[in-house]
Amino acid sequence: MTDVNLQTLHLYTRQFSGLTEEKIQTLHEVYETLQPDLQQVTDTFYEQLSLIPKTKAFIEGRIDQLKLTHIAWLNELFVSNFDEDYTAKLYKIGDVHVKVNLPVEFVSGAMSIIQGELTILIVQKYTGQTDKQLKILEALNSALSFCSLVMQESYQTSALAEELDKFLNITGMSRKLFDNLARVYSKKPG
Amino acid sequence: MTDVNLQTLHLYTRQFSGLTEEKIQTLHEVYETLQPDLQQVTDTFYEQLSLIPKTKAFIEGRIDQLKLTHIAWLNELFVSNFDEDYTAKLYKIGDVHVKVNLPVEFVSGAMSIIQGELTILIVQKYTGQTDKQLKILEALNSALSFCSLVMQESYQTSALAEELDKFLNITGMSRKLFDNLARVYSKKPG
Repeated sequence: MTDVNLQTLHLYTRQFSGLTEEKIQTLHEVYETLQPDLQQVTDTFYEQLSLIPKTKAFIEGRIDQLKLTHIAWLNELFVSNFDEDYTAKLYKIGDVHVKVNLPVEFVSGAMSIIQGELTILIVQKYTGQTDKQLKILEALNSALSFCSLVMQESYQTSALAEELDKFLNITGMSRKLFDNLARVYSKKPG
Repeated sequence: MTDVNLQTLHLYTRQFSGLTEEKIQTLHEVYETLQPDLQQVTDTFYEQLSLIPKTKAFIEGRIDQLKLTHIAWLNELFVSNFDEDYTAKLYKIGDVHVKVNLPVEFVSGAMSIIQGELTILIVQKYTGQTDKQLKILEALNSALSFCSLVMQESYQTSALAEELDKFLNITGMSRKLFDNLARVYSKKPG
């Protein structure tokens, strides 16, 4: 995590996701109402991942363990202030995903499943209250986008670093020699 | 695109996104109602990207051109059958994004902006019709997830290929030598 400026990343992802203080406040306000159903969202999430062979391979045999960290994150979505510390935490979660070789598309695929489940919950809990429904759905959309953006940013950085390690291992080249060559290469005209 | 099995990718992304035939049918059914407002979604989308320095840099000076391809894709979201041909098309769009060096998180960041805008449209157009709202929102969530998954899959493949090219350029190593070394490396125990 030495190669990322957390302040820049935080501002960028807050802006890109449209996650305003007002939206964060909205999530805090609905937490009490939605909280009792969050465990069901986590359970459904892992049920769905178990049906897809490619994702099933990554979760088999440790679903109970994974559910614990997942439900903790899901609760946090409604109580977090989405500050720099939280950005750092999400960035680290992205790193962990890379280290277990989880394909990059899993992040946004997973977010969509969760968004689908929470949308059902929100529309049904606030049925008939169009303005409220919309306000919560927009806040949720931004919060999930924020998480997805930070995790993917970490993913990109870590995955490329791993790729370089792989190249170095394959060729038997030292990191020092590579860095020297890269320095020469970057000075080449054209 | 030689390194991807389209049939496998199509089935995988359909399943992961939960995009059923019923949901595709739902999108077809609401197209007529939503179509008049889609141009506004595209316009708002580029307005928002113009406010973020990192994304602004990629669209400046060619927004009118970009809007044409964007609105075409947005319309397609409501008329496509999301078959293998459409998967191939999206995979190619992912490739184009890599070639202009668009950061990977742009894909899901962009999808969230669009999902936010379309959610406003759907909730307002079908106000008071909770079941219908929910049905359309779930269909939209799956369709956007499908697009995001396919584009990111392409992204990953292309970005890693570009990374290898960069490595070969820096080290001055031929692709043939690298491939030979990789073959030897992959046979090494442990």
